[in-house]
Amino acid sequence: MMYAASVSLGITVRLLAEGPEVSAAQVVRDVTVGDYTDPETVRTFAEGCDVITFDHEHVPTSILHDLEAAGVQVRPGPDALVHAQDKAVMRRRLSEAGVPCPAWRVVAHASELQAFAADLGGYPVVAKAARGGYDGKGVWKIDSDADAVELFEGITDGVPVVAEEFVDFARELSALVVRSPSGQAVAYPVSESVQTGGICTETVTPAPELTEEQAMAAQKLALGVAQELGVVGMLAVELMQRRDGSVVVNELAMRPHNTGHWTIDGSHTSQFENHLRAVVDLPLGDPTPRARWTVMANVLGGSVADLPSALLHCFARDRRLRAELYGKEVRPGRKVGHVNAFGDDLDEVRRRARHAADYLMGIEEA
Amino acid sequence: MMYAASVSLGITVRLLAEGPEVSAAQVVRDVTVGDYTDPETVRTFAEGCDVITFDHEHVPTSILHDLEAAGVQVRPGPDALVHAQDKAVMRRRLSEAGVPCPAWRVVAHASELQAFAADLGGYPVVAKAARGGYDGKGVWKIDSDADAVELFEGITDGVPVVAEEFVDFARELSALVVRSPSGQAVAYPVSESVQTGGICTETVTPAPELTEEQAMAAQKLALGVAQELGVVGMLAVELMQRRDGSVVVNELAMRPHNTGHWTIDGSHTSQFENHLRAVVDLPLGDPTPRARWTVMANVLGGSVADLPSALLHCFARDRRLRAELYGKEVRPGRKVGHVNAFGDDLDEVRRRARHAADYLMGIEEA
Repeated sequence: MMYAASVSLGITVRLLAEGPEVSAAQVVRDVTVGDYTDPETVRTFAEGCDVITFDHEHVPTSILHDLEAAGVQVRPGPDALVHAQDKAVMRRRLSEAGVPCPAWRVVAHASELQAFAADLGGYPVVAKAARGGYDGKGVWKIDSDADAVELFEGITDGVPVVAEEFVDFARELSALVVRSPSGQAVAYPVSESVQTGGICTETVTPAPELTEEQAMAAQKLALGVAQELGVVGMLAVELMQRRDGSVVVNELAMRPHNTGHWTIDGSHTSQFENHLRAVVDLPLGDPTPRARWTVMANVLGGSVADLPSALLHCFARDRRLRAELYGKEVRPGRKVGHVNAFGDDLDEVRRRARHAADYLMGIEEA
Repeated sequence: MMYAASVSLGITVRLLAEGPEVSAAQVVRDVTVGDYTDPETVRTFAEGCDVITFDHEHVPTSILHDLEAAGVQVRPGPDALVHAQDKAVMRRRLSEAGVPCPAWRVVAHASELQAFAADLGGYPVVAKAARGGYDGKGVWKIDSDADAVELFEGITDGVPVVAEEFVDFARELSALVVRSPSGQAVAYPVSESVQTGGICTETVTPAPELTEEQAMAAQKLALGVAQELGVVGMLAVELMQRRDGSVVVNELAMRPHNTGHWTIDGSHTSQFENHLRAVVDLPLGDPTPRARWTVMANVLGGSVADLPSALLHCFARDRRLRAELYGKEVRPGRKVGHVNAFGDDLDEVRRRARHAADYLMGIEEA
C-alpha cells in the first residue's frame, strides 16, 4: 500500500524483504531479500538510498544507530523508534513527559509481578513482553499469584516484562498523526478500534460519540507524543478509553498502521502517502475525512482461500465497496486484507463493511 | 496507475514493455522487455496469463487474432480493438451503426482529397492517418488543393488516409464507459476535454453547462458503441460538440484514457480499477463522482526536470492537491504526469489544478 503511494509521487522504492513471499516483495520492482537483523545486510542495502523507512518496528536499534552514524537518513530515527520497539522504554518516557499511561512497572521475577499486583489492590494485571509482541502476542492477563509464577517459568529468553494495570476500558481509540523532519505535524480524526482477542477487527472513523473536546484532546496527546519523541512519519497512538471518558496510552506504532487503513479511501491523503511525504520531507497532505463515516473491517484468514475470486460476490452486492488484498497466503486469523465502506449512515456503512469482511472470511453466506 | 489498482485487487500482473525505461516497467515487479509487434515475443509472453489487456492500441490485430485462436483471453478482443487502431474501420462501422460522425471518406490520392473537399463545399478539411496517430500526430488540417498535394507527397509508407469534415466545434467532450465480458456496462459522467494543439491539457467533470439530457445522450451513445463493438474494458469516446449542441464522434480509445485520470481521486471507482475488473470479469464498481467538480490538468514536459522535488511547492500551497507523476524523462510537450483537484467551487478547483500543473511545467512562478 505504501508502494502505490510512492509510484504516484515519483519516489523510487527499494525494498529489503525478509523473504520473497512477503506481500511487498510480490509487487515492488526492486527487492533485496535479506535478514534485517544482520548489520552488514542492512548497511549494504542502505547504500545509495536517500532515506530509510519501515513497515514494521523490528529492525534492531543498534543497526539503525550505525546507519545514522554512517550518514544515512533513518526516518523515524532510532531514538524515536525505540519507543515503538520497547514497551519499558516507552512507558518510562511517556510517564516522564506526563502522558497518561496505565500504572506500570518493569518486573524481573514472579515475586515482583505479585508485588505490583498487591500494590494495585489485587489481580487482574497485565504482563507484556517489552519487545517483540504484536497482535495480542506477548501480552498476558495475570489473574493470580500462580499465573505470575507460570508466566516467568515460560519466559526463558530473559526478555524484560512490563507489568501494567488492567484497564477495564470502555473501548479502544486510535489517534494517528504524521510529522515531518521540520516538525510540521497533522492529525487524522480519531478512530474507534474494535478488538477481538487482541486483534483489531474493525475501525470506525470518526469514533462515534466522542465529544469534540475528547477528540481534540486525543489528537493533541498524539501530536505531543510525536513531538516529544521526535517522530518522523506516521505515529499511531493506541488509546484505551476508561468508562469515565479519560484515556491512557496502550501502545505506539511508528509506521502506517492497521487503524489507519480507512484513510486510503476515507481521507484526502492516505496514511501511506503522508508517511512517505514525511520521510522525504514533502509538505503533508490534508488528513481530514472525505465522508461522514468510514468503516474499515479487517479480513482475517478463514475458510476462503481464493480471495481475489471471492471479491466477485462482494463487488456484485456493493458497487462502492473498497477492498485491498495483501497477497498473503491465507492462514487462520492472519490479516490478509481489509475492506472500506464510507457514507452518511453509520449503521449502513458498518453493515456493508462487516458483510464483505465476513464473506471473505467464509463466515457469511451470500 | 493500472498496477496500483491490480495490487489492491490481488491481481498478479505481468508486463510486456517495449523498453526497460517505460513508466510501467519502472514499477511493475514482473517485466518482460520485448517487441509487441513480434508474434513470437507476444505469444511466449502470453503463456501462463489468464487474460491479456493493453495500455495502448498498437499491438497488431493479426497477433491478437493468433492469440485468441490459441485460446488466450484477449480483452478487449481484436475485433473490438481494431476500431481504436484503424480510423477507416472505425468510421465505416460507426456510420453503419448510425452513430453520428463527421462526414468522412477514405482517400488514396491528392485528387480524391480535393474531390472530398469540393463535395463538402470547400476547405478546410481534415486528413488523418488511419493508423498510428496520437496526440495530434497523424492529423493534418488541409486548407487548399496545394495542401492536399503536399500531404500525399509527404506520405511515403502507403498508410491509408481518412478525410473528414472540419468540425468547427464549440468544445470537446469525453464519454467514458466500461463493459464486462457478460455485457454489464456503466458510464462515467461526461467530461469536457480542453485541447491545445491536439493534446488534452485539462478535463472538467462533469462537463459544465451540459444539460442532463445532453449528458445522458452522450453516455447512451458511448454505451451503444461499447455494445455494438463488443468492447471489454474501458472505452473512451472522444466527442466534438457542435455549436448547436449536437455531438459527433472524434476518436475511440479502448483502455484507461487520459480524460479519465480524474477518476483516480474524483470517482468511487477509478477507470484503472474498472478496466481491470472488466477484463478479469469482476462486477464493475460505481463510476459516479465523489465531489461536485473534479479538474484534471496534464503536466506536459517543460523547464522543470525534477518533478518529484517540484511537488514540494504544490503540496505546500494546496494540501488537497492530488498528483501522479509517470516517471518519464521530461521532454518538451510530453505528458509526464497530471494533477487532480476537486471541490464545490469550479473556478477555485480549476485554478488549483491549473496553478499546480503550470508550476510543474515551469510556467508559473511561486
